Amino acid sequence: MEQEYTKIGKRIPRVDSLSKVTGEETFTSDLKLPRMLVGKVKRSPLPHALIRHIDTSKAEKLKGVKAVVTGKDTAGLKWGVFRYTQDMELLPRDKVRYFGEEIAGVAAVDEETALEALDLIDVDLEELPAVFDPLESMASEGPLIHEDYANNINIHIDIDVGDIEKGFNDAYLIREDTFTAAEDSYFQGEPYAVVGRYDDAGNLEMWMPNAGPHMKAKPLSNLLRMPLHKVSVRKIAIGGAFGGRSEISPVDFICALLTKKARRPVKIVYTREENSVNVRMGHALVTTMKTGVDRQGRVMARDITCTMDGGAYSSTGPIATSVPFLCMEQAYRMENVRYNGYRVFTNKPIRGMIRMHGRSFACGVDLQLNMLGEELGIDPVTMRLVNARQKGDTTPTKSYVPSCGLTDCIKQVAEKSGWDEKFGKLPPWRGIGIGINSVQTGFPLGIRGGSQALVKFNEDAGVTLISGVADNGQGNDNMLVQVVAEELGLEMDDVTLITADTEITPNDPGTYSMVTTFAGGNAARLAAVDARNQLFDIAADSLEANPEDLVLKDKTIFVKGSPDRFLPLKKVVRTGLIKGQPVSGEGHFSPTVDQMREWVHNPEGQLSETFSFGATIAEVEVDPETGIVKVHEVTAAQDVGFALNPMVVEGQFEGSVAMGGQGGMLTEYHLWDKGRCLNPSQLDYKVPLAADMPKINNIIVESMDPAGPYGAKEAGMSIAMSAAQAYATAIANAIGVTINDFPMTPDKILAAIESKKKT
Amino acid sequence: MEQEYTKIGKRIPRVDSLSKVTGEETFTSDLKLPRMLVGKVKRSPLPHALIRHIDTSKAEKLKGVKAVVTGKDTAGLKWGVFRYTQDMELLPRDKVRYFGEEIAGVAAVDEETALEALDLIDVDLEELPAVFDPLESMASEGPLIHEDYANNINIHIDIDVGDIEKGFNDAYLIREDTFTAAEDSYFQGEPYAVVGRYDDAGNLEMWMPNAGPHMKAKPLSNLLRMPLHKVSVRKIAIGGAFGGRSEISPVDFICALLTKKARRPVKIVYTREENSVNVRMGHALVTTMKTGVDRQGRVMARDITCTMDGGAYSSTGPIATSVPFLCMEQAYRMENVRYNGYRVFTNKPIRGMIRMHGRSFACGVDLQLNMLGEELGIDPVTMRLVNARQKGDTTPTKSYVPSCGLTDCIKQVAEKSGWDEKFGKLPPWRGIGIGINSVQTGFPLGIRGGSQALVKFNEDAGVTLISGVADNGQGNDNMLVQVVAEELGLEMDDVTLITADTEITPNDPGTYSMVTTFAGGNAARLAAVDARNQLFDIAADSLEANPEDLVLKDKTIFVKGSPDRFLPLKKVVRTGLIKGQPVSGEGHFSPTVDQMREWVHNPEGQLSETFSFGATIAEVEVDPETGIVKVHEVTAAQDVGFALNPMVVEGQFEGSVAMGGQGGMLTEYHLWDKGRCLNPSQLDYKVPLAADMPKINNIIVESMDPAGPYGAKEAGMSIAMSAAQAYATAIANAIGVTINDFPMTPDKILAAIESKKKT
Repeated sequence: MEQEYTKIGKRIPRVDSLSKVTGEETFTSDLKLPRMLVGKVKRSPLPHALIRHIDTSKAEKLKGVKAVVTGKDTAGLKWGVFRYTQDMELLPRDKVRYFGEEIAGVAAVDEETALEALDLIDVDLEELPAVFDPLESMASEGPLIHEDYANNINIHIDIDVGDIEKGFNDAYLIREDTFTAAEDSYFQGEPYAVVGRYDDAGNLEMWMPNAGPHMKAKPLSNLLRMPLHKVSVRKIAIGGAFGGRSEISPVDFICALLTKKARRPVKIVYTREENSVNVRMGHALVTTMKTGVDRQGRVMARDITCTMDGGAYSSTGPIATSVPFLCMEQAYRMENVRYNGYRVFTNKPIRGMIRMHGRSFACGVDLQLNMLGEELGIDPVTMRLVNARQKGDTTPTKSYVPSCGLTDCIKQVAEKSGWDEKFGKLPPWRGIGIGINSVQTGFPLGIRGGSQALVKFNEDAGVTLISGVADNGQGNDNMLVQVVAEELGLEMDDVTLITADTEITPNDPGTYSMVTTFAGGNAARLAAVDARNQLFDIAADSLEANPEDLVLKDKTIFVKGSPDRFLPLKKVVRTGLIKGQPVSGEGHFSPTVDQMREWVHNPEGQLSETFSFGATIAEVEVDPETGIVKVHEVTAAQDVGFALNPMVVEGQFEGSVAMGGQGGMLTEYHLWDKGRCLNPSQLDYKVPLAADMPKINNIIVESMDPAGPYGAKEAGMSIAMSAAQAYATAIANAIGVTINDFPMTPDKILAAIESKKKT
Repeated sequence: MEQEYTKIGKRIPRVDSLSKVTGEETFTSDLKLPRMLVGKVKRSPLPHALIRHIDTSKAEKLKGVKAVVTGKDTAGLKWGVFRYTQDMELLPRDKVRYFGEEIAGVAAVDEETALEALDLIDVDLEELPAVFDPLESMASEGPLIHEDYANNINIHIDIDVGDIEKGFNDAYLIREDTFTAAEDSYFQGEPYAVVGRYDDAGNLEMWMPNAGPHMKAKPLSNLLRMPLHKVSVRKIAIGGAFGGRSEISPVDFICALLTKKARRPVKIVYTREENSVNVRMGHALVTTMKTGVDRQGRVMARDITCTMDGGAYSSTGPIATSVPFLCMEQAYRMENVRYNGYRVFTNKPIRGMIRMHGRSFACGVDLQLNMLGEELGIDPVTMRLVNARQKGDTTPTKSYVPSCGLTDCIKQVAEKSGWDEKFGKLPPWRGIGIGINSVQTGFPLGIRGGSQALVKFNEDAGVTLISGVADNGQGNDNMLVQVVAEELGLEMDDVTLITADTEITPNDPGTYSMVTTFAGGNAARLAAVDARNQLFDIAADSLEANPEDLVLKDKTIFVKGSPDRFLPLKKVVRTGLIKGQPVSGEGHFSPTVDQMREWVHNPEGQLSETFSFGATIAEVEVDPETGIVKVHEVTAAQDVGFALNPMVVEGQFEGSVAMGGQGGMLTEYHLWDKGRCLNPSQLDYKVPLAADMPKINNIIVESMDPAGPYGAKEAGMSIAMSAAQAYATAIANAIGVTINDFPMTPDKILAAIESKKKT
């Protein structure tokens, strides 16, 4: 089947590369609009306080200041991703809950004036007791951060499948361990920025990095009490997301208020520090995991309690509290499982989704499985093979798995990395480790579940594709063009792409949760097929053939089996125009899931129409004098269904190894002092650079998903997690002792080596 | 039927008014792009010359000059509106044919530098004999302007219907007269301007006033040898067209070449003088008309020869040579008619379409008819009533007329103006006159014949309409919003409009020839109906009703006859999204015409699906001492089919009286000296101002066209012509003598009065 394709499955350079390489691309901070003002945000100097009074009069009088906004300028509405998590005023009126929380916004003619105006805003705060540790926060005597959340417990997910007690009773071996991990940040290439423009007709236009413009426009319209079609989020180049561009940011709202008040465009560009602290970060986790296995290493029961530090507001809490568990239950077969996930409020910055979900959870699973295997005398690869999810299975929370190449992934990474020759046979201080993972490739969020695409033919038989899909850097734009070029027999260059503008482009759920290729790709494919059918109807007359007997290839419509009966595509398009039949196709696609499934209140049913799976093996060397880890080689395999563009897929693999393994397991974490982040900048927080990266072997496994476009599903995400797990298990293998706190920085490694010596 | 509508037929303020009134609207000359250069054009200092050599080296060396382009930078392709009129290089390589023709373009960092660079371009020209008068030009000894046009005859249209000799033989009375008129200009509120931007990926974006972006993008892509989908003409506010924005301008091409060469955005803004001379003007005409009538005043035969000064290139010559005749043959019944239309090249600026087509022709028809009537003792109103076109007729060139309110128009203007009390009974030097006219309301130009529209519902039940229609100032945007709001039970404010961008919006023929309401309005209506049907399908389930039994009104879907069974529109849209049925409708409409009809080579068959008709009466007073005409009152009626927005229609009527009557018949004309226009600016060319305008009585006649949207057809254009005719006949009536040369300026009026005294 593959060889029939001309674009799909090919290593095609990305359509968006050139403008990024030349620097021509316009990101939000590059945007210049006539009469544009500079916006700045006044932030809370305390982690928890009542707002007594804010006096903006001095700031307003400063020459060059065009608008100042505070909570008084808002309708006082609260925002949240879910109906039951609406607990955040994006510009609070009564109380601040973390150090750095937004208090006021200023728009002025230049940056100096805006900064001066911030200093002139008098904020009278009444400090409240603050709490920074989630376990302390859950203790009843702690201060309440939100009045309606007892014990500061924001989310509690309680899953209990099968018979956990019986499972443990039947187990041959049981272990219980606790794993912990600090917060981590995204450090997108592009710092957060937002531009707003409000016109006399009452239209608000906004530009900002986003993971789907509809996810920004909808809450903005609600909070601003404007009709949704009066709030347009516009297409702009986006420099990375990694989960950190999925939610509305308070500064979106502040920028909108400022431009409405000043009646001039306003641009706010975040500093690196603001980008770390004020646009979400990964959760810190404490995970206690009890696992029972039989003599063959099969998991008989697993009981997990995970406590997450959610920071000051709900954010995507219900999802974040679920996903580490879901990734695990999808990857590993098990019948008896219990999960208690707690997300707890603290007076710290807000935590959200991140590509590398829950280090302490994911790495704990693999480290513990290895420890169990070691006691049983079963090697880590076999431990995974006996537990690996299989096609046709149903997960504990009742999701059917229609395609699964996990066993292939495990076997291929083992083969390619030389596992059998290396495991247990490496020189001292060298180690090899494996991690596996799975991820749901797309679940719809309520009414924004489906993606829609429109294809319209130009007079010269070039086409324009209009799709709501946003490209955050992962290559979605290229994927869409490939799909349409494939279906319509065109070259890549013949397809013009219009995406990610809430006014122009149709519905799309957003580029999150690995749904884009599955939903957006299918919608584009269906739109192209619709257009092609119209072309066939037009051509059938002239060719005296049935539309069903026609094929479109290389810009020509042929009668199947009669290569001499053909029409150039351009001629068919023009005939359509003359006949009053302009060719434009529509397609929409929504993953088939259980609409009643809900993260917290009903975590059962088909979560996602399909799932992807991955396995990674890392080989490391630890310097016992310094604790520094050198990674020799990483071998990563993922079941991507079908690789629409292997070059792009490999790029995703490599990015995931960098983020999940190299950064997530070795260097990335935040340090705190009473709710204040001590390392918000790249000076103090080490994100891996290209030069830090090891050799990576990429293995694409293709399970041909029945519902994915051309068999494709998500590509790359699983690797971020299994790479972290592989790094963790490899380090444990190298030093002979398991570290339970992540990342595994040199100080922890040296301490572990020291502790082992003592035993 | 009318009273059922909530938006259609209502006096609704235009959606585009506010931004124009506040000055917020962005026209092309307002556009600012980062790193944008200023472009200027070097023009021919001679009316006819061979280009020996152009030396741009000194200009290129000037600091701040970023690109210089000449004919050498082009592929040397010729352009023309029709396949058989491709005679113009937009940047000529060998020859210039009129004073002011484009020779080179310059892009520099500022205007001063660009102007200095123009002076540094050395152009070596070899002057050729030039010809400025079309009749001289046709004489065989004149210099040839284009080698392949013998006798400089660009176009010859020869129509001969019925038996012209028999018609004259049967006539009771015959007259032959010759009428002449000078060139006139558009003087749009906005001078011509163009901005181009070329990016690293090879995409060209252009902004300029246009009468349909597709009409610009297509020739640009051809001439630049770029695929059409790589050339995007973007939406921008347009400050008037009047026929003068229908063609590609050489400066569009120059701007594109400059931005491609400089790799920076380029803006060129025309001076008022350039806007007069270098973007078309109206043709000068000499019309000889022989008309025979019977005793009742019925036209038995008409033989017309019209010679038009076309200037240096073909432009829209085939259409311009036809339209004055067509407007006449549509308005007046006649069986025997002959037309010889010649468009002749001269070494003068290029002439194109203008709203007030062919003054000498149109006014000649009415003046001559009055002279014939006077000899017969029949008053002008009766002369028109006996000859007026009727519904169900077929025109001499075989167009069926499906709706016609011309007789109503004539009767109503006569009634309202008090014709019977005034004609022949006014005090000395006062006069009253009538003119009637017709216009085809939309004919398709080849493959750009149809208009397409897409309607997409937002989550909050607001909609976005995507249509190719351009609004040049006549209110098309408002018309589209009204139509969609009507069909979908929405308020005007619920409809977001995206129009006139070749990349985003679908096909549309362009806003010319009065087609927009008919084609674009119908397409928008059909798209809304398609969306509504989808809504009904979704709602039918929940309401347990048949989709056919549902109605949509006031944002609510009801079961017909069961007012208690209803669903809010918003709920239906959201249900659709949840079910994976996003609501988006498509509509397209192409007027039904004879596709084989052609302007020059086959002027027979259904020209337009329908026609509009108008009548105007003017009452004037002439000062016999100064020759100055004071217009007391104008009464204008047009059969617009159905007035979608009477307020907008009346605005069109008034603009047409200003352009056709007040300007076109009293003050507007160009003066020449050897091909050089002596009055290209508003200092020397008098365009009427609001303060110059008389009282106007507007009468809307509604014939309910069977194919027009809600019965509508074109609104306002006919008035431009019948107003000119009414002014001309009223002045003749006031002074008792007919002036055969237009406009009727005071000098001509005084001379006519003087000549009458002598007889």
